[in-house]
Amino acid sequence: MARRTEYCGRVSKDLLGQTVILKGWVQKRRDLGDLIFIDLRDREGIIQVVFNPVFSKKALAIAESVRNEYVLEIKGKVVARDENVINKNIATGELEVEVEEITVLNESKTTPFYIEDGVSVSDDKRLEYRYLDLRRPEMTKNFMLRHKMTQSVRNYLDNKEFIDIETPYLTKSTPEGARDYLVPSRVHPGHFYALPQSPQLFKQLLMGAGFDRYYQIVRCFRDEDLRGDRQPEFTQIDIETSFLEADEIQSFTEEMLVKVMKDTKGIDIPRPFPQMSYEEAVNRFGSDKPDVRFGLELIQISDLVKDSEFKVFSGAVSNGGEVKAINVKGLADKFSRKDIDALGEFVSIYGAKGLAWLKVEKDELKGPIAKFFKENPEDLIRRLEAEPGDLLLFVADKKSVVSDALGALRSKLAKELDLIDKSVFAFLWIVDWPLLEYDEEAKRFSAAHHPFTMPRQEDIALLETAPEKVHAQAYDIVLNGYELGGGSLRIHSREIQEKMFSALGFTKKEAQAQFGFLLEALEYGFPPHGGIALGLDRFAMLLAGEENIREVIAFPKNGRAVDPLTKAPNLVSEAQLKDISIRTLKIEE
Amino acid sequence: MARRTEYCGRVSKDLLGQTVILKGWVQKRRDLGDLIFIDLRDREGIIQVVFNPVFSKKALAIAESVRNEYVLEIKGKVVARDENVINKNIATGELEVEVEEITVLNESKTTPFYIEDGVSVSDDKRLEYRYLDLRRPEMTKNFMLRHKMTQSVRNYLDNKEFIDIETPYLTKSTPEGARDYLVPSRVHPGHFYALPQSPQLFKQLLMGAGFDRYYQIVRCFRDEDLRGDRQPEFTQIDIETSFLEADEIQSFTEEMLVKVMKDTKGIDIPRPFPQMSYEEAVNRFGSDKPDVRFGLELIQISDLVKDSEFKVFSGAVSNGGEVKAINVKGLADKFSRKDIDALGEFVSIYGAKGLAWLKVEKDELKGPIAKFFKENPEDLIRRLEAEPGDLLLFVADKKSVVSDALGALRSKLAKELDLIDKSVFAFLWIVDWPLLEYDEEAKRFSAAHHPFTMPRQEDIALLETAPEKVHAQAYDIVLNGYELGGGSLRIHSREIQEKMFSALGFTKKEAQAQFGFLLEALEYGFPPHGGIALGLDRFAMLLAGEENIREVIAFPKNGRAVDPLTKAPNLVSEAQLKDISIRTLKIEE
Repeated sequence: MARRTEYCGRVSKDLLGQTVILKGWVQKRRDLGDLIFIDLRDREGIIQVVFNPVFSKKALAIAESVRNEYVLEIKGKVVARDENVINKNIATGELEVEVEEITVLNESKTTPFYIEDGVSVSDDKRLEYRYLDLRRPEMTKNFMLRHKMTQSVRNYLDNKEFIDIETPYLTKSTPEGARDYLVPSRVHPGHFYALPQSPQLFKQLLMGAGFDRYYQIVRCFRDEDLRGDRQPEFTQIDIETSFLEADEIQSFTEEMLVKVMKDTKGIDIPRPFPQMSYEEAVNRFGSDKPDVRFGLELIQISDLVKDSEFKVFSGAVSNGGEVKAINVKGLADKFSRKDIDALGEFVSIYGAKGLAWLKVEKDELKGPIAKFFKENPEDLIRRLEAEPGDLLLFVADKKSVVSDALGALRSKLAKELDLIDKSVFAFLWIVDWPLLEYDEEAKRFSAAHHPFTMPRQEDIALLETAPEKVHAQAYDIVLNGYELGGGSLRIHSREIQEKMFSALGFTKKEAQAQFGFLLEALEYGFPPHGGIALGLDRFAMLLAGEENIREVIAFPKNGRAVDPLTKAPNLVSEAQLKDISIRTLKIEE
Repeated sequence: MARRTEYCGRVSKDLLGQTVILKGWVQKRRDLGDLIFIDLRDREGIIQVVFNPVFSKKALAIAESVRNEYVLEIKGKVVARDENVINKNIATGELEVEVEEITVLNESKTTPFYIEDGVSVSDDKRLEYRYLDLRRPEMTKNFMLRHKMTQSVRNYLDNKEFIDIETPYLTKSTPEGARDYLVPSRVHPGHFYALPQSPQLFKQLLMGAGFDRYYQIVRCFRDEDLRGDRQPEFTQIDIETSFLEADEIQSFTEEMLVKVMKDTKGIDIPRPFPQMSYEEAVNRFGSDKPDVRFGLELIQISDLVKDSEFKVFSGAVSNGGEVKAINVKGLADKFSRKDIDALGEFVSIYGAKGLAWLKVEKDELKGPIAKFFKENPEDLIRRLEAEPGDLLLFVADKKSVVSDALGALRSKLAKELDLIDKSVFAFLWIVDWPLLEYDEEAKRFSAAHHPFTMPRQEDIALLETAPEKVHAQAYDIVLNGYELGGGSLRIHSREIQEKMFSALGFTKKEAQAQFGFLLEALEYGFPPHGGIALGLDRFAMLLAGEENIREVIAFPKNGRAVDPLTKAPNLVSEAQLKDISIRTLKIEE
């Protein structure tokens, strides 16, 4: 093989008249008999190469046998195209290469789908032939972007003297949080490693070890049921520091994110990022990760309807629930009765028993519940800033149901009504988190973030008396309605950590068995510390403008946690199982 | 907390007279009553801070209660030490800080071992308190070095337009090579993922996808019995390229390694690195990863002794084996009969039935086998360049035993006789590898590297007729007697890959079941490709001057694959096992 002199996609006017050697794949071939045009593709783009008996009869003869996706090496001269055949769709569109020599480096069967953007083929087929799917320019670009992102992150953190330290993947199973993936030990029959859900404890121990500023771009594992933005394994930008206050950690996180946005998208994001309390986010947007690129905020009207004759409203309030509304500004005409019924179906997913509605007309409110507002519509109209043409949507229920239902409805409406400016990247800090959440089913508290989160100093006494009132020193970073990352200061004293475990319902013995090593470590000069972890897949997905993290993971699993390419997970031999002293309970499928 | 103005270890003369805020751990405290000296330590080093009622009575009072490993924040003025108390052992030894304010950020119990270099404590104790062990300056330095290494590697590869792409950790079990760690699937009972022994196939598929230049610093997993330089999980600098010849891949690998040596150790390594064939390495050094920093080469004497009356020698030759010697130059006096017997014991580990020896004196050879060389000692003396004072050591056996035994003896002697210049880093390429090795026990061929290695073009026909004669297009990089990495060109045609599987004893069906997805991929325009993988842990160990990779892994497993800190692997609940549809066969210990 000769040495390539340039990528196909980078042949530029600077090379006019020069001889180049290119290597790439046949994207398209047009055979005009004595003249063959091939679009030659590599990871950087496409260039048209031309075969003509005038340049080389031999090359032309070979080009006749070439088909799509053949791998070629060509040598030829860069020339300008005639003006009438300039292709403005590609960067090299004003140029072409006159081929003097060609070598077929490999052949190709007809591919199961075309190698082009926007291909319409099932997800599983794409994953089965992932190596072909990734050849598609839009996919190639996603991974170039992802690499640029990690480069930018590392560059920032290296300059700030963070140290990249690897933590183990074969570690200890902890029952908190999601399900662990387990790994049977061969040396210790009956014992198991667990793949880490995050390196949380190890990064804290590295602070105990004095490393002061740590980072790692690290794989994490959760055996959860899969959703669009979930995968069995995912990647985290993991950061921990000693001796810093929450605002300092937030500040360098912002700096880093601003740099990534600039380096990868050329976009300047102003600092500081806005901050919003957890309570405000849930009240105004029905979500702890609100997309603030559009309005449709949730408006409290419980006080206005608490005595309403409409029992659905007044009953919800008297039962300790609430009534909130969304004003779909000026778009009432777009919604038929059927459309609104469909929205009612939608909110029922979130537990709402119904969706009440009103259309605002010039002199009156219209709709099934209009009669209840006959007497005094002004308060409602003022509160909702309602004007003729508006559609008002109401949910009355338990507070959590109202939030969830209207929060989800808000996002759905924004997408369907195209209210979102996709060129905007809206970063937002959510702060003032509760430390604990009460789990109605389990009848106990669980950690809103994780059990190592530091309570607000002034709330520590409440841990034993009124745990639900304790706030955490935690901060989540949200981007366009997605939780990009979460961080907090961590507990660095055994006493507080024990109180936290106790609030979570651990007995002393259980706490010791699970986390004894951490409790002990906290007694040996553990520094104040805190950090943050950012979801790289989700971040890359958002910057790539994709809607599923599979599009930015090279070899993801499908919705059934299967890799259609290698067929993992698969059956293994009896000998392998015997070696690790386990037996399978049943073989389904 | 106030904001730190400088690391302890970086307080310099530039700060003389200025007020600094430092945070760190108490390394040592000397209480002279009205005067207290504390050595304050952070990851960058140590500075002496002084408490004196003249600076602050309050601070002095607090300092009285402080003990080793307490975490302190201090504020004070940087001053020059009196000349008679300058400490030349530390970088800040000409300075000290007069403390005006002190805050105890955390307390510490007495640590189970001193936080200092060269601590004498069991490995398991060090791992149990790893967060304390890592505070020791020599350990902290190892991880700073390791980070510098990966920074340097990434920097080089990023500049060469390699793209960092993550490959999956939950993948398919393949029976080739070492044992896989298996991960039971919850969603698919009876099915298992495997943790990858390397991302070999995925990086090849990325070449099939057209990424052209890939790298990843990636964890790999092998469930093998542990040795000093083995761990269940280890880290690889993984590289793959398309369209390059072996010499081009070797060339940029050298460039990268030279850069790492310069960036981390300030050492200039000359290029190109020497190359040696596999055969020469085994012949001269008894090893395919020879340490060429010292002599003690293996010298062939089979031709001289094939008719010897010493039947051990002549018999070995007539049985198809050989006789080789090492000349321990000028050091015969250092070896007593007992010492030599011990060496004989040592070579028996490698299957050698004995170690013959001669001491060269002024006019004669001495030793039990001297009589066999009475008649014509000159040939032997000339061949071994023997001079008075030399000790000659011989092994006669099967070729592989002679190599292994003398190769190992050579290394042992060099260490014990202190023949190695530890300031030298000797890189060496081993090339011209055989493609296959015959496994006497299994009575079949196995891949010398892996089943995807490209045979030498001119040897491909031999794959079916004389597989043992086929050479691989492979290149290993050796550093100071350690295999630092291995690389090769890979097979990029289905036909050759099928021949390879067949040579390895796979039926067509087996090959299809295991590697069908690869065989199919090779039919869709797969580019010529090749790469290399370097062991990061080993490389870091060598640059850190350590003898065990545990010293450069933050949280390694011990010799029984246990983490003494978290106690992983551990027992898990019945519910967890039921969830993944497995049962353990027996619970030992």
